[in-house]
Amino acid sequence: MARRPRETLRLRRVAIDTYRENVAYLHRDCHLYKAEGFQALNKIEVRCGRHLILAVLNVVDDERLVAPDELGLSEQAFADLGLAEGARVAINHAPPPQSMEYVREKLRGARLAQAQYDEIVRDIAANRYSKTEIAAFVVAVSEAGLDREEVFYLTRAMVRSGEQLDWREPLVVDKHCIGGIPGNRTSMVVVPIVAAFGLLCPKTSSRAITSPAGTADTMEVLAQVDLPMERLDRIVRAERGCLAWGGTARLAPADDVLISVERPLAIDSPAQMVASILSKKKAAGSTHLLIDIPCGPSAKVRSMEEAMRLRKLFEYVGDRIGLVTEVVISDGRQPVGFGIGPVLECQDVLKVLENAADAPRDLREKSLQLAGRVIEFDPDVRGGRGYAIARDILDSGRALAKMEAIIEAQGRQTRTFAPGRLTAEITAPRSGYVAAIDNLAMARIARLAGAPMDKGAGVRLFKKLGDPVERGEPLYRIHAEFRSDFAFARELAARNSGYAIADEPPPLPQWDLA
Amino acid sequence: MARRPRETLRLRRVAIDTYRENVAYLHRDCHLYKAEGFQALNKIEVRCGRHLILAVLNVVDDERLVAPDELGLSEQAFADLGLAEGARVAINHAPPPQSMEYVREKLRGARLAQAQYDEIVRDIAANRYSKTEIAAFVVAVSEAGLDREEVFYLTRAMVRSGEQLDWREPLVVDKHCIGGIPGNRTSMVVVPIVAAFGLLCPKTSSRAITSPAGTADTMEVLAQVDLPMERLDRIVRAERGCLAWGGTARLAPADDVLISVERPLAIDSPAQMVASILSKKKAAGSTHLLIDIPCGPSAKVRSMEEAMRLRKLFEYVGDRIGLVTEVVISDGRQPVGFGIGPVLECQDVLKVLENAADAPRDLREKSLQLAGRVIEFDPDVRGGRGYAIARDILDSGRALAKMEAIIEAQGRQTRTFAPGRLTAEITAPRSGYVAAIDNLAMARIARLAGAPMDKGAGVRLFKKLGDPVERGEPLYRIHAEFRSDFAFARELAARNSGYAIADEPPPLPQWDLA
Repeated sequence: MARRPRETLRLRRVAIDTYRENVAYLHRDCHLYKAEGFQALNKIEVRCGRHLILAVLNVVDDERLVAPDELGLSEQAFADLGLAEGARVAINHAPPPQSMEYVREKLRGARLAQAQYDEIVRDIAANRYSKTEIAAFVVAVSEAGLDREEVFYLTRAMVRSGEQLDWREPLVVDKHCIGGIPGNRTSMVVVPIVAAFGLLCPKTSSRAITSPAGTADTMEVLAQVDLPMERLDRIVRAERGCLAWGGTARLAPADDVLISVERPLAIDSPAQMVASILSKKKAAGSTHLLIDIPCGPSAKVRSMEEAMRLRKLFEYVGDRIGLVTEVVISDGRQPVGFGIGPVLECQDVLKVLENAADAPRDLREKSLQLAGRVIEFDPDVRGGRGYAIARDILDSGRALAKMEAIIEAQGRQTRTFAPGRLTAEITAPRSGYVAAIDNLAMARIARLAGAPMDKGAGVRLFKKLGDPVERGEPLYRIHAEFRSDFAFARELAARNSGYAIADEPPPLPQWDLA
Repeated sequence: MARRPRETLRLRRVAIDTYRENVAYLHRDCHLYKAEGFQALNKIEVRCGRHLILAVLNVVDDERLVAPDELGLSEQAFADLGLAEGARVAINHAPPPQSMEYVREKLRGARLAQAQYDEIVRDIAANRYSKTEIAAFVVAVSEAGLDREEVFYLTRAMVRSGEQLDWREPLVVDKHCIGGIPGNRTSMVVVPIVAAFGLLCPKTSSRAITSPAGTADTMEVLAQVDLPMERLDRIVRAERGCLAWGGTARLAPADDVLISVERPLAIDSPAQMVASILSKKKAAGSTHLLIDIPCGPSAKVRSMEEAMRLRKLFEYVGDRIGLVTEVVISDGRQPVGFGIGPVLECQDVLKVLENAADAPRDLREKSLQLAGRVIEFDPDVRGGRGYAIARDILDSGRALAKMEAIIEAQGRQTRTFAPGRLTAEITAPRSGYVAAIDNLAMARIARLAGAPMDKGAGVRLFKKLGDPVERGEPLYRIHAEFRSDFAFARELAARNSGYAIADEPPPLPQWDLA
């Protein structure tokens, strides 16, 4: 329908970051459109020619924010629309996207087809869903809502929702941990080893969302991680590996939108996890992927049965999308290494790479196990030989040299980071043995202390599972950079230290772990 | 934890109406708290002494909105916190409310207990849930997620979430339609009849949310509906009835919050519907309630089986919360009366009350049936006699006189409303009989035309089910008051008129309807 110029509103950018939800701001006394009429249905369509977005509506009563003849858009919505301030835009009622009908069908127990997942995921990637609509989808997907064929459909739809890299090599390897274990920075040891061995390993990582550090956050202590694709490509060709932030490429963009709702809701279903990880890796051009599933009482996966089910799902969907997927189930009973938080984890990683005497043994061992399995993706390596190859590369200093080369190639960090100046030690309330360390509690304390935003914030562990402790001996030290964060973290640690001390050391787990 | 004054932010009211979600605005460069650290977890706690709210966080990059030493709150959040601008507030990370764990349990298939529903509903009523969290709950409740015992728990929790009226009379009657049928304004006929008969009928109604008119919107054409409780009480005592807006009392407040998410999501489960309606009525002090379930291909309930299931659920939960509940299943195949939208519906109602020759027969008949059933709640009325009593009251003019008295008591509307000046007629594309009228399409056209915000906007039907039509003859007329709305409504009617014309009139439904 053609629309006359005077039936449009003046576009205005409102400097509010609404965190992956498009929000439009309309004055209550808008000359042209009555805000209340639009508000109950919640969503409007904003357009100018071919430029069109959907946005949730907020009604404004202050002309300094938006005038009655203006339409304001939040940062993301403004960027999505792609017009300049002052452009003339028309608005219209926006029914929920058509694909929401499929979400409702799913909620009623239906099995959806590939085409339906494609449509849902396309709409989500294009920011056509409101957060409540995304929440409905996330819930529909969670908890046994999808059979494994549907997980495959969803994964493929997510791969298709964005760009896909092609490294033009037959073997492109990657490793990925499903998360949940603080300090688990194995990638920063595995990638240098595997790249030094010669396999192409273009590792891109996320920044932490709800954890105290992602690999990108920790690597950033040493090097630039926010690199344009062209440069990343050159680095990977030259060094056979990289450790960069994955946010610059538009890989499986629907995943980022889904995550922005899943994380605050703390709804993490196997289907969503598998689709999220495999779609990102497939889109990033990997051909071979090693998945690490830590298992333990405060890990994401809490029993061996659950770990096995998840493993089968990874294997099934990996096969279907043409990504060779191997799964390792590892010991997830406690944090890995001593440090939690970017700087503190980085110290652990460097000690392992430098073969320092006080390097954390668990980080070294786990990294070697994983690197060995990745190296065995090479058809020329005999099964079982990977570990020894990885150990040779690490012990000889070639892994450290490769790490140095990668840091140089990505651009050495110009700032120097140190552990946070504000420190407090949490001590043992009694003597005995460390019987349990709660991953969730430790992650939360480190996060409140300021990690990952403040590189030096976090926690340094002095005692690990099975260690004997005397009453009053320090269990760990909190590091923070800001007083308010320091107070938050200490407050939480006082309520729940995360440590359990018992008369006996804990038994070994019932199963063999990598 | 005590907090020093300089660790607080200056409270600022941000004139943005975020529609039943608390939103806090923090400058990206806040001196005290780092916005990014808070953003991923989405929700913060804002407090000053005993004043405490939870809010979703938006990050602001413009000092004119909020300065780095300020914390902005959206209208509702500001009102909830209950402090003046300039007050010193502290913020903290807010984990999801404890009761969200029960929501996740529900999603995993658990059966929840009364105490768990109480906690969830209390948190929702206190605006502690974000919209995505509410969406997760709404989805958990929908589609066979609750057994009928749980529906009872939820209903009782919702009753307890707010105030409860006590009229101190043994018989307090009400009627309620589950909705979905445009023009279905029977309450404005039933209440005057029942009140004239002498039963206490303190009818409070909602305004339309997604429909073109609620009873409160239509009654407002004639009288004030936004009345303080004390006045409502006096009116009801004097006239035995009222037709007011129910939003002033804090009755089942959790329901209003849930509805603000359910409606845009278009997720409407039997459990949620029953809990919503019965909790509101119980809280409003009703002892006897008549429920109208319209059934038809474009009604909320589409088959007799579904209607029966819903009836049983209403009866079961009604009994358990001590509200005598009768259910009538009615003909929901088309809109009731001729008008859709406040003024146009009001004209229908007045014609019925005035016994005008051109009064819509279906509205009259349906109102008499319902009024008869309500009158039979009186133990002195013999079963089956209610209809004749209601008809006598209507035909004698006593219902009209009672309506006039109620209007006077509530305060006669000072403005005069007329049907919208902008009109367009939609004509029959062929000759034949009206075979179907789509309730949803007609509601949407009336709504886009501006109903209920513009009282005169809506649709006037000329033809009803079974009527013969000639090609080119008008089926209905759109009324609008604003050009943009007029265009929206015509655009939609052109795409889908809502009418089906066939060679034969439609068959009667297979079942007897009230």
